[in-house]
Amino acid sequence: MGEISNPKPIPPAEAAVPKAVVSRLSLYLRELQHLVRDGYETTSSTQLGSLLGFTDAQVRKDLAYFGQFGYPGIGYRCSELINAVKGILGTDRCWPVALVGLGNLGRALLGYKGFETQGFRIAAAFDVDPAKVGTAIEGVPTYALDDLAEVVAVKKIKLAMIAVPAPAAQDVADRLAAAGIDGIMNFAPVTITPHDGVSMVGVDLAIELEQLTFNVVNHQPKP
Amino acid sequence: MGEISNPKPIPPAEAAVPKAVVSRLSLYLRELQHLVRDGYETTSSTQLGSLLGFTDAQVRKDLAYFGQFGYPGIGYRCSELINAVKGILGTDRCWPVALVGLGNLGRALLGYKGFETQGFRIAAAFDVDPAKVGTAIEGVPTYALDDLAEVVAVKKIKLAMIAVPAPAAQDVADRLAAAGIDGIMNFAPVTITPHDGVSMVGVDLAIELEQLTFNVVNHQPKP
Repeated sequence: MGEISNPKPIPPAEAAVPKAVVSRLSLYLRELQHLVRDGYETTSSTQLGSLLGFTDAQVRKDLAYFGQFGYPGIGYRCSELINAVKGILGTDRCWPVALVGLGNLGRALLGYKGFETQGFRIAAAFDVDPAKVGTAIEGVPTYALDDLAEVVAVKKIKLAMIAVPAPAAQDVADRLAAAGIDGIMNFAPVTITPHDGVSMVGVDLAIELEQLTFNVVNHQPKP
Repeated sequence: MGEISNPKPIPPAEAAVPKAVVSRLSLYLRELQHLVRDGYETTSSTQLGSLLGFTDAQVRKDLAYFGQFGYPGIGYRCSELINAVKGILGTDRCWPVALVGLGNLGRALLGYKGFETQGFRIAAAFDVDPAKVGTAIEGVPTYALDDLAEVVAVKKIKLAMIAVPAPAAQDVADRLAAAGIDGIMNFAPVTITPHDGVSMVGVDLAIELEQLTFNVVNHQPKP
């Protein structure tokens, strides 16, 4: 295809470690945690790959970006590999997270059990509605959005989740960047203009549904 | 790594079209929709790839699974490619979706704006709490879980979202499968034993946060 002029910003060249490899690390971590729960002490690239529908070569290649983790004749020691992957992902520590927006989605995120098990703790929640702030919801203290910078600094928060209506999302992202947040997870159904030095992931739940419709329409083997 | 005995079920061999290709189709679709919104009539594999951090070769290879979509000297016609990708993904029609669970997460999903724009409409919601059923929330009628099979049949619903507490998720999945649902999106933080002929995707929000911590810890270029 010919080159076409493009006024939209071009993202920087692909990182040293491809994004897809990093997202597979999370999947490996989950399966390793399941294996330990099920009583396994060791595993193999074949087993790990089979559980996720990847080849053993893919598993070995992905892990090889970060070092040498297997033992000849033994395979991987599950607990050891879990610790290594957590170290790579940065989840070998507990990350306090700021949540902005206390509507239904924000409250759902406060009650979501899947964060704490992986090392994330919502440490402060923010809203512009005075009726919602000054209390604790699900044990999390709530603050006025105007107090964002101060609370983020005091609590040493580096990650944030945006769960506000779409029209407010960019302003909230600007405030988070100004407050020194390093990473933002955006649930608002809108594209946010990123800030230098701030990582951003957008959560688009319809994408998961599209994967289902593809399977249903094409009668794919089930994962 | 040596083969290790494995009592857990092994998923079937990889589908004809790799899962990763299908998930990139959704990303291409979003970027094409943004391009049309920004006034573009045509695009190229180079532009589409740049916007997502993929190579132009990757874009062409992914699309080649499904046919020949470009024109020499023109590139891709955006609207035409949007229609083609929607046809492949099965989102060229409107899918009614059943939602089970009307806690905070279920209510947040009822209010989530990102589904309808991609062709998904929550057509019925279910809960076991009599106080929550028989009304409409965000315009969606609510029913007792015991009426699931009947409502799903009458409304010809093929997709469902599970937003119930973890201990109830497997029972709900069993009921959905028995009711003839073809695809399930599971938000409960628990692994559900799948049913033959039912596609399943689990939504694990901590995975997105892990991608952020990786970037923050490793100072990766921002996507």
